[in-house]
Formats: sequence, C-alpha cells, structure tokens
Amino acid sequence: MSITITASMVNELRVATGAGLLDCKKALTESNGNVEEAHTILRKKGASSAAKKADRDTKEGLVESYIHVGGKVGVLIEVNCETDFVARNADFKSFVKDLCLQIAAASPKVVSRDQVDPAEVAQEREIAMAQVQGKPPAAVQKIVEGKLDKFYSTVALLDQPFVKQPDKTIKDLLTERITKTGENIQVRRFVRFQLGA
Amino acid sequence: MSITITASMVNELRVATGAGLLDCKKALTESNGNVEEAHTILRKKGASSAAKKADRDTKEGLVESYIHVGGKVGVLIEVNCETDFVARNADFKSFVKDLCLQIAAASPKVVSRDQVDPAEVAQEREIAMAQVQGKPPAAVQKIVEGKLDKFYSTVALLDQPFVKQPDKTIKDLLTERITKTGENIQVRRFVRFQLGA
Repeated sequence: MSITITASMVNELRVATGAGLLDCKKALTESNGNVEEAHTILRKKGASSAAKKADRDTKEGLVESYIHVGGKVGVLIEVNCETDFVARNADFKSFVKDLCLQIAAASPKVVSRDQVDPAEVAQEREIAMAQVQGKPPAAVQKIVEGKLDKFYSTVALLDQPFVKQPDKTIKDLLTERITKTGENIQVRRFVRFQLGA
Repeated sequence: MSITITASMVNELRVATGAGLLDCKKALTESNGNVEEAHTILRKKGASSAAKKADRDTKEGLVESYIHVGGKVGVLIEVNCETDFVARNADFKSFVKDLCLQIAAASPKVVSRDQVDPAEVAQEREIAMAQVQGKPPAAVQKIVEGKLDKFYSTVALLDQPFVKQPDKTIKDLLTERITKTGENIQVRRFVRFQLGA
C-alpha cells in the first residue's frame, strides 16, 4: 500500500520543522505519508531545525501587555528570543500581541503542560479512568490519554488551539515563528488579571 | 506654649483625612499643631472619612498596564474601587496610570509593608541594630525604626515616595483619591516584568 506525497504535504512539514525540502520529502515517503512519523524521522536525523534551536540561549525579547476594552481583563507577557534584531521585528511583535489576545480570551494557567501541578494531573487521570470503566483495557489507555490532552489544552498555553485559527495550536504558531526567524523563541512567563477574580 | 493654626495646615489635614473643616481645626488646636496627633484625634472621633471608607467593599475598578519604551519593562496592575462610575472616571484612570509608572520606575516588590516577608524584616532589623551599636539605648530604637522605614520605602509601593512628586508617598496619593472620590480605593495586586530578570 503506497500513498502519494503531495507538494503541499511537503511544504507543511517544511514550515513546521524548518527542515530542507528534500529531507521532508524523504521523511514523508519513509513514513508512508504519516506526518507525525515524518516529524520523528526528521528529528532523529537532526534535520528539524526547530528542535535544534530549542536548546539555544534566549536573552532578548519583548514584554508586552493587553488590556481588554473596559479595563476588566489584562495580560502581561514576556517572550524571549536570541537577538534584539528579531525582538524589534514587526512579525515578532504581532506574534507576541497574538499571544496576549490568546491569554485574555482562553485563560490558560501555565505556559507548558509540564508546569501543571502533578496532583491536579493525577486527579484528572483518576476522573478519566472512572469515566471509562467497563471498556476493553486496550482502549482505556488511549481514551484516558485523549481526555488528558483535552485537559492540557484548557490549562497550558502551548497546548491551546489558537483563538484566531483553531486548527493550529499555540505550539504550532511558535514553531512557525522559530522556523521563520531562525531563532529559538520561548514564552517565559505571563500573568492574567481579571477584575475581582 | 501655643502655636498658630494656619488655614493651610487645616486644609492639608482636610485633604489627607476627608474630615470636615471645623473638626480639622479643633483637632489641630487640641494637638497643638502636631499633624500626626491631629490625625489620631480625628480617627478616634471617627471623623476621618478616609479611615472609615477603608472598611468598605471594593469590587469594581480597573486593570491597567504600562510598557516602557523598547518593551523591556512592563507592569500590570489591578486597582479596586466601590462603583463602576468611579472606575470610569478620568481622574481615577490617571491615578492608576501613575501607579503603573511608579512601579515601572521604582520596582516595589509588594503593595503594603505588612506583605513583606517577616524573615526579611527581621534581617533588616538585625543589620540596623548592628549599625547603631554603641549609641545610647534611648536613641537606638528610634534610629532602627527610621532605618526600617527607609527599607519599607524601597519595597512597599504604598510607602514609596511618588516619583513625579517625591514629597508625597503613594499612600498620600491614595488617601487623596479616597477623599476626592468619596469611595474606598485599594491597590489589589501588581506584577512587574523586566526582560531576562
């Protein structure tokens, strides 16, 4: 069984990983068109530049804020990159502004899923396990992980669907920026104040 | 020994406490012109409206932010008042903006001195005590308290001299606002992000 690797599939993988055209095509062929597997293949080869850049130092960046009309909700964020050149770039600024909007609208609690309180995760897992009682054991693990992913996408900024374009996560958006600027970019911290909450 | 109570003394006390003209004059006469004592007299009589208002509920207000030019320092603040009417007032808004500027410029750590970590206060007291060794015991207490006041004015927003008008503290500014609006006003919380710090 074989699958046609289209130009748009190759291009999407390029944008997502920052790897070269040929590497992407090879990886997709090797994975028989499975995008996730192609990602893994590229990372193993070290061809995914986004993954490589994630280790580099980020000391520059921007502090940005957003106050929702009426002054009842406000957000403050710090996003880091490697050089002040990128920090002053209009694209980077609009990316940071989008993150502010996202936080104001979707109220994440933390930047990434590893920052969620483990006790809270354990509780969510327990609830999910209770909900799938009686299902075949092989299915249980998969359903529970799916429910946990859903939970993470409510509390962790990077796991959230982007409010302006819900088919992408914030992590996708970040990876695109890393690929485009050629610099490691990190959301360092944010706070969200809601009047009286 | 008697002292002349001038109109400007009476007026200053009025603005600071919100008490009536006659009450202020009486209190100053009773305290022989000592302003601090006059404050206490007014509070005991319950004439100081600012002190009375400090117990009232604050559920309205504003969330406001300030980003310093260049995007390396940002502030987010929530200031509460009693009604949305006051929150939407231009005077209130400019007061909140002034607080943002203050926090950006003077980097306080907490809103009021009672929020400073007691361990840190104990350490400051120890340092101050060590510095005044050899002085007469009567003077020591006073000098140490003075040094602690100095310390509080670096870390507690309300104790800081207002950067735009250093003869006033932020607490003075707040009391003026309470008197002028006739509502209790509270700085609920703030954060200050400095790039990479």
